Amino acid sequence: MFTILSLKNGIDNVRGFYSQGINAGLKAKDNDLAFIRSDEICDISAVFTTNNFQAAPIRHFKRYPKAFKTNFILINSKNANAMTGERGIKDIDTILNELKKNIPTIQNPVMSSTGVIGYTLPKEKIISAFKKFDFNSIDSNSAAKAIMTTDTFKKELSFKVILPDGKDFYIAAICKGAGMINPAMATMLCFIITDAEIPKKDMDELLQQSVKSSFDTISVDGDTSTNDTVMLLSNAKSKAYDKEAFKTVLNALTKELSLQILKDAEGSNKVVAFEVLNAATKKEAKKAATMLSNSLLVKTALFGEDPNWGRIASTIGASGIDAEEEKLTIKYDNITVFSKGSNKMDENIEKQALKVMQQDSFKITCDLDKGSSSYTAFGCDLSYEYVKINADYRT
Amino acid sequence: MFTILSLKNGIDNVRGFYSQGINAGLKAKDNDLAFIRSDEICDISAVFTTNNFQAAPIRHFKRYPKAFKTNFILINSKNANAMTGERGIKDIDTILNELKKNIPTIQNPVMSSTGVIGYTLPKEKIISAFKKFDFNSIDSNSAAKAIMTTDTFKKELSFKVILPDGKDFYIAAICKGAGMINPAMATMLCFIITDAEIPKKDMDELLQQSVKSSFDTISVDGDTSTNDTVMLLSNAKSKAYDKEAFKTVLNALTKELSLQILKDAEGSNKVVAFEVLNAATKKEAKKAATMLSNSLLVKTALFGEDPNWGRIASTIGASGIDAEEEKLTIKYDNITVFSKGSNKMDENIEKQALKVMQQDSFKITCDLDKGSSSYTAFGCDLSYEYVKINADYRT
Repeated sequence: MFTILSLKNGIDNVRGFYSQGINAGLKAKDNDLAFIRSDEICDISAVFTTNNFQAAPIRHFKRYPKAFKTNFILINSKNANAMTGERGIKDIDTILNELKKNIPTIQNPVMSSTGVIGYTLPKEKIISAFKKFDFNSIDSNSAAKAIMTTDTFKKELSFKVILPDGKDFYIAAICKGAGMINPAMATMLCFIITDAEIPKKDMDELLQQSVKSSFDTISVDGDTSTNDTVMLLSNAKSKAYDKEAFKTVLNALTKELSLQILKDAEGSNKVVAFEVLNAATKKEAKKAATMLSNSLLVKTALFGEDPNWGRIASTIGASGIDAEEEKLTIKYDNITVFSKGSNKMDENIEKQALKVMQQDSFKITCDLDKGSSSYTAFGCDLSYEYVKINADYRT
Repeated sequence: MFTILSLKNGIDNVRGFYSQGINAGLKAKDNDLAFIRSDEICDISAVFTTNNFQAAPIRHFKRYPKAFKTNFILINSKNANAMTGERGIKDIDTILNELKKNIPTIQNPVMSSTGVIGYTLPKEKIISAFKKFDFNSIDSNSAAKAIMTTDTFKKELSFKVILPDGKDFYIAAICKGAGMINPAMATMLCFIITDAEIPKKDMDELLQQSVKSSFDTISVDGDTSTNDTVMLLSNAKSKAYDKEAFKTVLNALTKELSLQILKDAEGSNKVVAFEVLNAATKKEAKKAATMLSNSLLVKTALFGEDPNWGRIASTIGASGIDAEEEKLTIKYDNITVFSKGSNKMDENIEKQALKVMQQDSFKITCDLDKGSSSYTAFGCDLSYEYVKINADYRT
């Protein structure tokens, strides 16, 4: 069996990669521009937002030939370079061409942006900040900070995988997102790097399935940004690879990062798993679980720590899936509050349900007794703070 | 041409109808139980929630034969009698049978409830309150108050229609709802009565189309309750009817009441029309407009009076409908902030857009330039107050 070790210092551990974050003047003081560089050319896989209006950096990425290789990612926060049309794409070319003058070894560099929608990039600021970079720096900490927007803590993760034959590889990531977060803010970015010798085919396949079971299951506000991006880079430096091991560690990494995003959800205090059991179909299980995680009334009841299961039931009913009052059971962790059509709430159960809700993290289960399909969506509460953060984000 | 006059005193004006609201002890002090009675038997049409878990009063209603006639509606607030199974329906029978002992002329009485989900009705309280009723009372004011939940003002409307031949009829309604409001709270109820001699076929047809263009276009929180009910009763006492006139006045009545609900939306300060123009299909226009009215990020930007059109664009993009950045135009009232792919925001436009947003009510238009279908959805802002009201509703 393979062994997985969790390490500190984010993407610093992965052999052959360099990174750094600096202030380019997009934010007043904090880091706002970062790079990730590899000394070997890398395969790259990416998953992007399903929003029809994809931001310029995504459209720029897609103009490279299929299965292109790269050794450089430039990332800025504060400006999403979204809804900026052809101009936005040309700006990226200008910036990346300037960059090449600084490090001629760069091949097919990609850019990624997060921030306010609708404004062209301050090209000059970015370009004149290049001289601040030390391109041989290994500094995950500063890079992770540079990609933050309303995040209250930086998100970086690092694992070492030791295979049965003694070979090892690293996988690590920096990530941003504080909420499925808001479209004006460009939601979430995640950059995963590895030195595993993973075939490009596996990269694409494993990244896709991994995102489905991690980032795709969380919701802070049900909004989908123009900039959502998850990238996986591999420089194969370790000469080590095992598909099962890679899949396991990749899934652990994306799952943990997605829960960190939820934990950092704007103004939120709780991470809640909405588990829908025994639905007629997988699609229905997903639909109901997702509606629960997005319902304003469910979210405000979470904030109020009010075990008002009627809102859970009503949302299941409103979701339009195959469900019957007489077959439905609702639990808060292991406390049954409604069982096959009858309300189990009494003073004692209410007290126990309240105790569950007072935790930072718990599970709400709806057993539909209609089939054998299940899905779990992850959500959070809706607080005054969320409204405050989003009422006037741009200023 | 017919003439429409707007009158005071809600449903008091309609010939042959009686109504009253009293306190039955469900609420501490305020009215919580009301009746609407007709001295003639009435045709009745109804539109109910699409929630799969329909409340007991709705299931009770549906057990009457198709096209049954009635002369009595009993309405309570504070308890939705939802998710209460067969027991909830039997309770209604018990209550209505007791009522018949008080007024033997009652035929096929119906009940309607709004309030918390999951608790059986306090039958004894309701039954013992019957003696407080004066069944010959004409008191729209007290009845309209009795059906309120988190409503901050009572909702009643009354119109007189004078036909070209000099005949006239009345139509009037009482209504509750403060938000598309929450499922635990049972959303909206509306009782419309008329003395027009309207055929049952027209009642059904006109009520359906009227709800579609009024209550169905508004959203406070995107949640659909277990109890939503709109009823139309006609006693034909006026011997007057004209289909066009009736349709016009009915649509005006439901439109105005739906906007009153939005105006009274929990914690909301603004009513906003989201107009989607020139979509490829009607379905797509509706989908995009509805997503705009439900987006948390749009709603918080409305609260913050922040003309952050990027959130509007991003929501259109996320809606999955046929749209192109280069064809999209966005306006706040008549101020264009984004036009066919280019950002029109400068200091002056920003100032003007801000002015639009500072109004109590305004329109946001998204012209997709993709076809010729349009739809307008009505929404409101999301404030701290909404979170507060809903964080712990039951207490």
